[in-house]
Amino acid sequence: MITDLHLDVRGPGLRAGLTHALREAVRMGRLAPGTLLPPSRSLAADLGVSRNTVADSYAELVAEGWLTARQGSGTRVARRAEPNPADPPAARTKPAQRPAFGLQPGSPDLAGFPRRAWLTAARHALTAAPHDAFGYGDALGQVQLRTALADYLARARGVYAEPERIVVCSGFHHGLALTAQALRTRQVRAVAVEAYGLDHHRGLLTGAGLRTPPLHVDEHGARIDDLARLRGVGAVLLTPAHQHPTGGTLHPDRRTAAVDWACSTGGLIMEDDYDGEFRYDRPPVGALQGLAPERVVYFGSVSKSLAPGVRLGWMVLPEELVPEIVAAKGHGDYMTSALGQLTLAEFITSGAYDRHVRSMRLRYRRRRDELVTALARRAPAVRVTGLAAGLQAVLELPRGTESSVVRAAAREGLAVTGIAAFRYEPAGSDRESPRRDALVVNYAAPPDSAWACALDTLCRVMP
Amino acid sequence: MITDLHLDVRGPGLRAGLTHALREAVRMGRLAPGTLLPPSRSLAADLGVSRNTVADSYAELVAEGWLTARQGSGTRVARRAEPNPADPPAARTKPAQRPAFGLQPGSPDLAGFPRRAWLTAARHALTAAPHDAFGYGDALGQVQLRTALADYLARARGVYAEPERIVVCSGFHHGLALTAQALRTRQVRAVAVEAYGLDHHRGLLTGAGLRTPPLHVDEHGARIDDLARLRGVGAVLLTPAHQHPTGGTLHPDRRTAAVDWACSTGGLIMEDDYDGEFRYDRPPVGALQGLAPERVVYFGSVSKSLAPGVRLGWMVLPEELVPEIVAAKGHGDYMTSALGQLTLAEFITSGAYDRHVRSMRLRYRRRRDELVTALARRAPAVRVTGLAAGLQAVLELPRGTESSVVRAAAREGLAVTGIAAFRYEPAGSDRESPRRDALVVNYAAPPDSAWACALDTLCRVMP
Repeated sequence: MITDLHLDVRGPGLRAGLTHALREAVRMGRLAPGTLLPPSRSLAADLGVSRNTVADSYAELVAEGWLTARQGSGTRVARRAEPNPADPPAARTKPAQRPAFGLQPGSPDLAGFPRRAWLTAARHALTAAPHDAFGYGDALGQVQLRTALADYLARARGVYAEPERIVVCSGFHHGLALTAQALRTRQVRAVAVEAYGLDHHRGLLTGAGLRTPPLHVDEHGARIDDLARLRGVGAVLLTPAHQHPTGGTLHPDRRTAAVDWACSTGGLIMEDDYDGEFRYDRPPVGALQGLAPERVVYFGSVSKSLAPGVRLGWMVLPEELVPEIVAAKGHGDYMTSALGQLTLAEFITSGAYDRHVRSMRLRYRRRRDELVTALARRAPAVRVTGLAAGLQAVLELPRGTESSVVRAAAREGLAVTGIAAFRYEPAGSDRESPRRDALVVNYAAPPDSAWACALDTLCRVMP
Repeated sequence: MITDLHLDVRGPGLRAGLTHALREAVRMGRLAPGTLLPPSRSLAADLGVSRNTVADSYAELVAEGWLTARQGSGTRVARRAEPNPADPPAARTKPAQRPAFGLQPGSPDLAGFPRRAWLTAARHALTAAPHDAFGYGDALGQVQLRTALADYLARARGVYAEPERIVVCSGFHHGLALTAQALRTRQVRAVAVEAYGLDHHRGLLTGAGLRTPPLHVDEHGARIDDLARLRGVGAVLLTPAHQHPTGGTLHPDRRTAAVDWACSTGGLIMEDDYDGEFRYDRPPVGALQGLAPERVVYFGSVSKSLAPGVRLGWMVLPEELVPEIVAAKGHGDYMTSALGQLTLAEFITSGAYDRHVRSMRLRYRRRRDELVTALARRAPAVRVTGLAAGLQAVLELPRGTESSVVRAAAREGLAVTGIAAFRYEPAGSDRESPRRDALVVNYAAPPDSAWACALDTLCRVMP
């Protein structure tokens, strides 16, 4: 039995402090397993606290499993099956050295996030919400947001959208995962994807047990006529308004062909409308979904129009698919904040969303024009494509120079992404994609303070 | 060819209005597939607009697939493979008739959500955040929140928590789904669960391909000694602080036994600490996780302490499991709002969270005491258990009366849940759980305005 127990009793309240100190002494091994603790009466006298304080502390630690108390044998430190780590482990991964500038695709200008307008919307939304809105939500999402989206999507994107067929999600990743799960439940085995796209999205599909045969991509988007040649394909994932990342718009004939394929085979078109709001030289091309609402799953989000960190997106579904997506969600809204949904609803209905998109469209168009002008002057051999819309442009490079340009940029502190990072050529696919060397340049992302310097560096490393 | 085309041109901008009107005419079938449209020159004259306006509209609708244009054959309405629904379909499901009062488990008092304090935290957090915080986040979650949680969980719940082993999620549902996925990747085949619990949680596990053999539950929580008898179990899901819904606290010997089982078999304990903050008559029982941080996955959330609609929770993981959960999350934070995370971090570090929990604890204790007093006076034969903690109590009923009491309550407009709704007896389990008749009464949920009446009705329908 130990009698002299040095404990640093601190923290809010004597008992809580004593309990904490004892727990730490056991955790750190200063009190070894099996050690008999002093009777509560004597420890209380030592510490100058009441006996009850000590007895309560002991009881609490017994209840937690740190100590054991047996009739007639006093209170002991419990035998523990495992020592606890005394020191936090060393950091597992060092943060990668960050380049000074980045023009990689994926993010809008985060400095443009409308903090003040968002907070105003949050205040209005949270003040007006009924108490029920803070509970477990409906699997479809908050009705205020679905109503606001139905109006917005019909108006701005030509989507046939009723609130009853809109399902709110946390962004495209979440929506794609839910759809993949529903497709698997339908016994779909394969989803055709564009031969240029994000690894990450294909990984979600293959992770759900779906094969992902590729469709070749040219300047008019995905080659839809290849669909008929692929076996067992139950759906196709497309970026019709602005192919990601090559930048083409799906040709009208191919839009029709995709709808025909879906109608004649019972297949689904998954339309990723990731940057539909941003088109500069003419009105946006409306969503493919409007042509065949019962055959298209339409995906949108605020990740490009506001910021990825808002984590809000939406799916507009064929009516018959709604129950299957609700089942995939677990018959409730377990992912997406009600507070965020209500705030976005207010943000849209108040007109703040339209204003923000308009203002960012001007900003991004200016950036795009500066990019084109600078390249024309300083690297006239480089052809720039995919310029009509979105946040990025494709800079076509001479054959065989892509990786050396990426490396040269990195040496100058500029992170850029070659188009090879998006090429998808699974083993065993029948034909190779035509090779091309290019950079995918996100001119929208850098803050204003970094843009001029990033652009200068980019021009300097062009071949 | 039609020459007289009545179009209601409205909306912002002539061209946009014309495009919208034409699109709707095609969608609604007023312009049949194949119909030849008037030349742009003549329609422009009819409408009194410039020829370019009409030509641009036609071009846009061709790009969208509504119209087709062929050299020498004019512009026609595209052949469409599918008619679009002209009217919104009838509502699929009628909202269920809602009872006047509800005492079903699951929700805290939603009227208690601290709207004003939350908005204050949001303002501070959003104003202070660096631009980067609005981008795609780290898979672990925002570091500000993980740091705040590490401090809070160590202090309030005795959790061994470093920010590097905390993963933010959207609540227990999300955390459980991620863990189930990681367990499947580890080739785990079965997770033992408590014989009383939520169907919904078991469904998540079975949906991931895991068997869920049950452990019997008595007044000291789950019978951990049954674990050794179950074959192929790689993890066990427990509610140690307050068994859900029967209300017992896991006995100290069983806490130790669970840790011993985990250490000797390499199994994992999944600790659902769903209402750990709310304990009324003594300090909360600390988390089991503190005893064996490398063998316990600890889950917590704000769903009971703030509101389910916030959709924020956390997991504290064994260090070796962190990369597996990060992989299950898709190596990024695709689910949980950065804005919400930063707001919660500020809410915790400012002390608002502690204040809110304290104030709700007082409110819920008062409710609990009123429930006990009223039942003792008006239904003295009913034994009330599970009272020490949480938001609900178990009212033990005479044998065979549970379903008739639930029905009687419903007739009076009071929704209550019998304990049978939580009993889990899979086909082929070796022994039946001891039968009991009881109600699980969530005294925390009703707003103050409804509580007196709900309590009165509850007492009136007691046998």
